[in-house]
Amino acid sequence: MDTQPPLLLALDLTGTFAFGLNGALTAVRATQLDVVGVVGLGMITALGGGVIRDVLIGTLPPATFVDWRYFALAAGGGLLAFVGSRFLDRLGTPITVLDAVGLSTFAVIGASKALNHGLGIGPALVLGVITGVGGGTIRDALVGQVPSVLRSDLYAIPALIAAAITVVAVKADFYGLAAALIAAAVCFVIRMVGVRLALNAPRPPWTGPSGSGPSSTGPADRE
Amino acid sequence: MDTQPPLLLALDLTGTFAFGLNGALTAVRATQLDVVGVVGLGMITALGGGVIRDVLIGTLPPATFVDWRYFALAAGGGLLAFVGSRFLDRLGTPITVLDAVGLSTFAVIGASKALNHGLGIGPALVLGVITGVGGGTIRDALVGQVPSVLRSDLYAIPALIAAAITVVAVKADFYGLAAALIAAAVCFVIRMVGVRLALNAPRPPWTGPSGSGPSSTGPADRE
Amino acid sequence: MDTQPPLLLALDLTGTFAFGLNGALTAVRATQLDVVGVVGLGMITALGGGVIRDVLIGTLPPATFVDWRYFALAAGGGLLAFVGSRFLDRLGTPITVLDAVGLSTFAVIGASKALNHGLGIGPALVLGVITGVGGGTIRDALVGQVPSVLRSDLYAIPALIAAAITVVAVKADFYGLAAALIAAAVCFVIRMVGVRLALNAPRPPWTGPSGSGPSSTGPADRE
Repeated sequence: MDTQPPLLLALDLTGTFAFGLNGALTAVRATQLDVVGVVGLGMITALGGGVIRDVLIGTLPPATFVDWRYFALAAGGGLLAFVGSRFLDRLGTPITVLDAVGLSTFAVIGASKALNHGLGIGPALVLGVITGVGGGTIRDALVGQVPSVLRSDLYAIPALIAAAITVVAVKADFYGLAAALIAAAVCFVIRMVGVRLALNAPRPPWTGPSGSGPSSTGPADRE
Repeated sequence: MDTQPPLLLALDLTGTFAFGLNGALTAVRATQLDVVGVVGLGMITALGGGVIRDVLIGTLPPATFVDWRYFALAAGGGLLAFVGSRFLDRLGTPITVLDAVGLSTFAVIGASKALNHGLGIGPALVLGVITGVGGGTIRDALVGQVPSVLRSDLYAIPALIAAAITVVAVKADFYGLAAALIAAAVCFVIRMVGVRLALNAPRPPWTGPSGSGPSSTGPADRE
Repeated sequence: MDTQPPLLLALDLTGTFAFGLNGALTAVRATQLDVVGVVGLGMITALGGGVIRDVLIGTLPPATFVDWRYFALAAGGGLLAFVGSRFLDRLGTPITVLDAVGLSTFAVIGASKALNHGLGIGPALVLGVITGVGGGTIRDALVGQVPSVLRSDLYAIPALIAAAITVVAVKADFYGLAAALIAAAVCFVIRMVGVRLALNAPRPPWTGPSGSGPSSTGPADRE
């Protein structure tokens, strides 16, 4: 089952390229980077989530290190962002759409792969989410930002829903291309609605005497 | 020996819950997070150290991904922190005590598991410490703080002492429940005395022409 | 082939010590740390790159956890930095030279080990670079800095060139001590010329409406 049907593979490769491109653009916007940083962070965004999943499942080397297409598309996305950031910066919407395709596909594939290797429901849900959001989390941490997935947007929650649908489908024994596409489509729609309406995941009801640590994201002194 | 005696297992599960709870509360205090961030960082705090240990030992999937109780307690601690941060914020002392139980148990189990899988003394000491402090280190890095374990408190050093007692006991061939509890108790006492007296690990005698980056660490708070 | 010829082993051990020393000194300069932080970050700098490589290749426990000499030299470098930072801070040049020895050796060994375990050219290049720069990247992230390898200096690029020479040599079937030394020497020379002339890797031609930089911790945007 680690061999994906062609349509799912195509979505997976599309998502890898989109994550490489979008990850690199976000990194360029966040801080001063050189070519190593831009391409490196693009590749980390694209491949990081799947790599963490494969390390935790114990299928090493990671799938994306064995199939050269993932590697090439991740690096290609990063390089394109390096040379074309000026132009690409205006392509917000199509890049957001492709990024959502990646998120949806990664979550479904991550959850099904985890179940496929004998893990339980909880770990499969978490590994579905990690496959989708892990790479961007590492990128944000490396550029000195609290990862956006931990504090705003609807990003991990649609991935969790896609992983949950996948888990239900596998357990009910009707997982296949159709179920995978449905799970991914639900994630995609929620994600795009969230972007459109600027929805955020719920915040804690109470976060400390002063609201929250005001200085915690305060003057950042990285040198 | 990877199957723990019931008492050690109970302490290990208690520690997992306490780390999930405390890790999430610390994260809530450090920066603005949503439910994904609070629960996610609670789980990372609770499971991160053991996961790093198992990755480095090569026993994959990690133990906490195979036994659902760890997963459930880590997530439960994080969720409880999300809904109850207002009330829990006043429970400083009991939470610190439970956190110290976790630190002590994790260090002992980490060191014994490393030896049990054929690693040498140095790696066993380091993996004992990492099991205890690894999760909190990742959490701090993700919320943009220099991990408190690297700069203040007596936190890693009691874990190192517990790991050292464990290593001596294993090498002298009298490791068992009693030795494990003694090692954990020593760690626990040192940790609690350190909290009580606000002790810190030694600082370097000299840290640069200007002292060092003054504000770079900001208000530090593990608890 | 994982057993290195004596000369390469000597360079590898030298580099491990230099990375431990230099990594710890860099950490001391960056922020307030205690002994756990200084020695811990020295060890992470020295061992981190090789550990990531071995995790991704799937050869666990990592080589440096099995051979006690790496562990001892990494810890020794960190401890020396802890006690002698005042004196060592003036030894900039020799430490930079030894650090470049480490970078060069690590890149060559990393790339050859990846190929040796059946990985393709792309992953071998990346793993060569990661072996050289991975430890310092984690250290920088933990002390709250954007890793310098992502934004300035010529550091990853000479490592990439050394990895590329190694890959060519292995594929052309004349990899051996001589080829390894040539690849490492090329990396070393480029790195030292880069230090001498203060060269940087190329920056993106365009980095956003406001240049970039200042808003680097500003409002976070995943898209």
